[in-house]
Amino acid sequence: MSGRLIGVGTGPGDPELLTLKAVRALNEADVVAYFAKAGNESNARRVVATHLTRGAAEFPLLYPVTTEIHRKHRYYTSAITGFYDASALAIARLLDENRTVAVLSEGDPLFYGSYMHLHVRLANRYPTDVIPGITAMSGCWSQAGLPLVQGDDVLSVLPGTLDEDDLAKRLRAADAAVIMKVGRNLPKIRAALTLAGKLDTAIYVERGTMDGGRAMPLAEKTDDRAPYFSLVLVPGWRSRP
Amino acid sequence: MSGRLIGVGTGPGDPELLTLKAVRALNEADVVAYFAKAGNESNARRVVATHLTRGAAEFPLLYPVTTEIHRKHRYYTSAITGFYDASALAIARLLDENRTVAVLSEGDPLFYGSYMHLHVRLANRYPTDVIPGITAMSGCWSQAGLPLVQGDDVLSVLPGTLDEDDLAKRLRAADAAVIMKVGRNLPKIRAALTLAGKLDTAIYVERGTMDGGRAMPLAEKTDDRAPYFSLVLVPGWRSRP
Repeated sequence: MSGRLIGVGTGPGDPELLTLKAVRALNEADVVAYFAKAGNESNARRVVATHLTRGAAEFPLLYPVTTEIHRKHRYYTSAITGFYDASALAIARLLDENRTVAVLSEGDPLFYGSYMHLHVRLANRYPTDVIPGITAMSGCWSQAGLPLVQGDDVLSVLPGTLDEDDLAKRLRAADAAVIMKVGRNLPKIRAALTLAGKLDTAIYVERGTMDGGRAMPLAEKTDDRAPYFSLVLVPGWRSRP
Repeated sequence: MSGRLIGVGTGPGDPELLTLKAVRALNEADVVAYFAKAGNESNARRVVATHLTRGAAEFPLLYPVTTEIHRKHRYYTSAITGFYDASALAIARLLDENRTVAVLSEGDPLFYGSYMHLHVRLANRYPTDVIPGITAMSGCWSQAGLPLVQGDDVLSVLPGTLDEDDLAKRLRAADAAVIMKVGRNLPKIRAALTLAGKLDTAIYVERGTMDGGRAMPLAEKTDDRAPYFSLVLVPGWRSRP
C-alpha cells in the first residue's frame, strides 16, 4: 500500500483554464506540492489558489539555483540534480505514508515541465496519474485568435536558445512554428525569422491568458524586451480557402 | 450590437478534461454548434453532454462528405468549401440575432480543428473568443505517462501522410515527435521510424484519455490496425539525469 502521485497541469495562467479533473485532484490530495524560486510565489500555486480551501498540506519545493549561474555550468547541473533527487525522496516519504500527493505543473506536466524530474524518479515505484494541462502555447495562440495549424501542416516547437542559422533552417522546413525561451534571445529570433522569410507572419505573445496579456505582430515590436512568459508564433495553413 | 462567437476546446475525450472556462461558456451560450458526420454522434458533443442541461439550442453542422472521396479531389474541395461557407453564413445569422454561439471543437480549436474554418470567416466581423482545450497529443502522452520534451528539445508534430523519406528525415532532425493521422499510414510510419533509428523508443497510443484507451511500444504492436483516435509519440529528453 502506498499513496498516489498525481502530476497536475495548471495551464497557461488563467485560473479558469484549469480542468475539472485538476480541480478534483486538488480536492482529493492530502498534500499539494509545487516548485518555486525561494522568496517568490509559485505561479502554479497562484493559478489554483481558490481551490486550496480544504486544508491540504502545502509542500513547496524551492529551487536552490535558477538563473544566477549558467544552466550548463557543472555546479548548476550538480545543484539542480541534487535538488531533484532530494525532492523525489521527500515526496516518496509522503507516498510511503499513504498520502496522495498532487504536484502542480505550469502548463502541461510532461511538456517541458519541472514535474518530469519527479515523474522519472517515482512513477516506476508508485501509482501515478498525470492530468494534462493547457500548454502555454495553446493559451498564446488562443489569446491571439491565431489559427496555427491545419490539415497536413508540420509544426516545429523550437527553443530560442538554438543558434541563428539552425533556427532559420528549421523555420524554413516547417509550415508552422512555436518559439519558446524568447527572453534575451529575441534579437536572434527576429534575425532567424528574417533569414527564413517568415518575419512578416510571426506573432509575439506575452503573458498569454494572464492579466496584461497581449499579442502583436513581431515586425511591429520595436524593443527587445521579452518577459519569462513570452512566445513567438509562426502560423501555418497557407493554403486556407 | 451582435452576439459573440466562442470557439470551445473540448479536449481529448475524457469529459473531466474540459476546462472551467469551457463549462462556463456552455452555460452562457444561447446556441451550441458542433461538426459531425451525418448519422454519427459528434465526439465533441458527447464530451460536453452532461453540461447541456440548460436548454441551449443545438446546431449540428453536418459534413457533406468525409472519407468516401479523396480530400484532394476537386469535388471534395468544392463540397467542403461550400459547406464551410454555408456554415459560416448560418452562424453569422445567429450572431446577427444577438445570440452567443459556442462552437465545439475536439482538442484545441486552433490546432488542426474544424472550428478554424469558421474562425477565419467570422472572427474579423464578430466579437470572438477562443477557449483553448487539451490537445489529443497531451492527452496521449499523459495517459502513457511519457515525458515528452524537456529543456532545449526540439519537437516536431508530423502528419503521417508525409512520404516515408520525408518522415524519416524529419524524425532524425527532431529530438521528439508526435505523428498524427496514423490510420492506414501505420506501416509507412513504422518504416520511417526504423530508417530514423527511432522505432525502439516510439510509443503507440490509441483512444488516449477515452474509455478503452491504451498505450504500448510501437515495436510490440504486431498488427497494422489503427483507429481514427491514434497517435505515435517519440519522446525526447535523451540527456535526462
